[in-house]
Amino acid sequence: MADDPIRFGIIGCAKIARKVSRAISLAPNSTLYAIGSRSIENTKKFAIQNGLSETVKIYGSYEEVLEDPCVDAVYMPLPTSLHVRWAVAAAHKKKHLLLEKPTALDVAGLDRILDACEANCVQFMDGTMWLHHPRTAKMKEMLSDSLLFGQLKLIHSTSTFSPTPDFFENNIRVKPDLDALGALGDIGWYCIGAILWAANYQLPNTVTALPALTRSSAGVILACGSSFHWDEEEDGKVATFYCSFLSSVSMDLAVSCSNGSLHLKDFIIPYQENFASFEFTSGAKFAELHLGWTLKQKEVQVACELPQEALMVQEFARLVECIRNSSCCPETKWPEISRKTQLVMDAVKKSMELGFKPVNV
Amino acid sequence: MADDPIRFGIIGCAKIARKVSRAISLAPNSTLYAIGSRSIENTKKFAIQNGLSETVKIYGSYEEVLEDPCVDAVYMPLPTSLHVRWAVAAAHKKKHLLLEKPTALDVAGLDRILDACEANCVQFMDGTMWLHHPRTAKMKEMLSDSLLFGQLKLIHSTSTFSPTPDFFENNIRVKPDLDALGALGDIGWYCIGAILWAANYQLPNTVTALPALTRSSAGVILACGSSFHWDEEEDGKVATFYCSFLSSVSMDLAVSCSNGSLHLKDFIIPYQENFASFEFTSGAKFAELHLGWTLKQKEVQVACELPQEALMVQEFARLVECIRNSSCCPETKWPEISRKTQLVMDAVKKSMELGFKPVNV
Repeated sequence: MADDPIRFGIIGCAKIARKVSRAISLAPNSTLYAIGSRSIENTKKFAIQNGLSETVKIYGSYEEVLEDPCVDAVYMPLPTSLHVRWAVAAAHKKKHLLLEKPTALDVAGLDRILDACEANCVQFMDGTMWLHHPRTAKMKEMLSDSLLFGQLKLIHSTSTFSPTPDFFENNIRVKPDLDALGALGDIGWYCIGAILWAANYQLPNTVTALPALTRSSAGVILACGSSFHWDEEEDGKVATFYCSFLSSVSMDLAVSCSNGSLHLKDFIIPYQENFASFEFTSGAKFAELHLGWTLKQKEVQVACELPQEALMVQEFARLVECIRNSSCCPETKWPEISRKTQLVMDAVKKSMELGFKPVNV
Repeated sequence: MADDPIRFGIIGCAKIARKVSRAISLAPNSTLYAIGSRSIENTKKFAIQNGLSETVKIYGSYEEVLEDPCVDAVYMPLPTSLHVRWAVAAAHKKKHLLLEKPTALDVAGLDRILDACEANCVQFMDGTMWLHHPRTAKMKEMLSDSLLFGQLKLIHSTSTFSPTPDFFENNIRVKPDLDALGALGDIGWYCIGAILWAANYQLPNTVTALPALTRSSAGVILACGSSFHWDEEEDGKVATFYCSFLSSVSMDLAVSCSNGSLHLKDFIIPYQENFASFEFTSGAKFAELHLGWTLKQKEVQVACELPQEALMVQEFARLVECIRNSSCCPETKWPEISRKTQLVMDAVKKSMELGFKPVNV
């Protein structure tokens, strides 16, 4: 039993489930055991289209996946408005929970999920993949070197893409009853998460949404942004982000410190799977007479043996193994990261509702 | 006379005058004729330290430069609070005017300068060098290609550097009576200018300063930022910028459009003099299953035969030659660019004064 892989059940056949089912098969300590959607035909179709093994159990409901005693952990890519109901149900069935982002419509909803996970001693993690890439660890290691970078001053992040017209008609991410947070929840999540990551998860003091806000006719956010501010005692740090379903693909992250800066343009999904890079400067000055710089940005390349989503699954499964085999407590780092991200997202939304006024976090 | 170079007088021995005196000597159609500061000793010292030719006239006052009938044009790197007085005086003496940025403390001040230039039929240009780099023209050519980039959606710009402690004690740029606009005037000017440049000088509808504002004990702006918003009829474009005297060197410009994006990290002062580069993507999509991107950023390199500041001087001198030799009217493009930049800067300042409320431009 000790070396048995963690058996995953997937609830919902969203497009992202294709990527994560592949990741589950790539992660050495996990296996896809079952998959369920609201219709057994859809589940079968998904299994065939994605070449799932015939041993994977096919269910025609979410309940059946949760009732299956062989399922250790659930990956849940459901529309956000369904998260509280099904995530709480999964926790009550003692299923460890890998929950797609945004975790909930607001922090109150997320707290219901986290309370259920804690009460049932199951691991919680949200589906933010880039946090598991070795590039992310390398960047954090370097940013933490105060001689190299110094004090954190400014973070800027974008997450934009331009979906097909069909997306605006049919995708759950623009349906007010399914994903009311729209672009803020779907891709703003990454920007907020990246800013908090850079700030070592120290919450900003104030959050002020940018007046540039675009909503669909149904009221769903299609494009928005925000600035964050940390008080003087926290070095007066600043951050800005912008997310949009109306622009071409961008995933910029720029971190400026008192002695250096770091840039990458593909922080959420690296350009390619086997390696990723970022650029940085440290100690750059103006050349004599300001005719140039004393040094240019340097590139750092980081190899990646497994895709970041497989590393996410592997880390999640490792924590589940630890709980199962060694009676460890669930790791609190991951739910804490999710909760802070959701908390700041709530503040961005509140600032919008207040006419873009600063909101204390 | 037709091929005689334009004879420049420099008023003030600021550090930037060293760079521009070199540029005047590099530009094929201009020559340094005279230089004046408030003390003849300082002027002599400047001439010796910068290896100026012994033929350059050395004056112990600004007036003498303006009174010299052989001076065609004046380069004026004085503290901002002195601009109106001396720029207007220069125009009245029929001297063409290359004025260091920020052009004035507010648009009312700039209008007095521009009115004097117009009334005296002299060319006006501000000292924004990067606009004259061939890279800038290349980027504009590509951004204007709607198949390549599509509609402009988002612009982000930074201008930061971390001066020596001595700067905060002695530099004119942090003296409330000399350069009250501080970082906003000195380096925010570039960010505002870059955003307007990317937006083809279409003014934003609203300007909203970021609550992250740092002032010195004397009230001078040390770090600030703003967002700009264009209405839906203008494609709902958005821009953000941040400028600071408290962070390491950064000069980021990122332009995101509906079909492509463009990035560079040294837009104000290129890393080196002889060439500069930028990166862009066009038509990038997610790869199958969102496992990566269909294409990476491409680099475009642009050679530069003369440094951008020499190209600025050359362009200014060309316009002056045209007025002198062919009775052309002064080119209105450059004062219009300066005025729009100053107008938006005024709006940022007003938004700060109103507690970071949106200000209509």
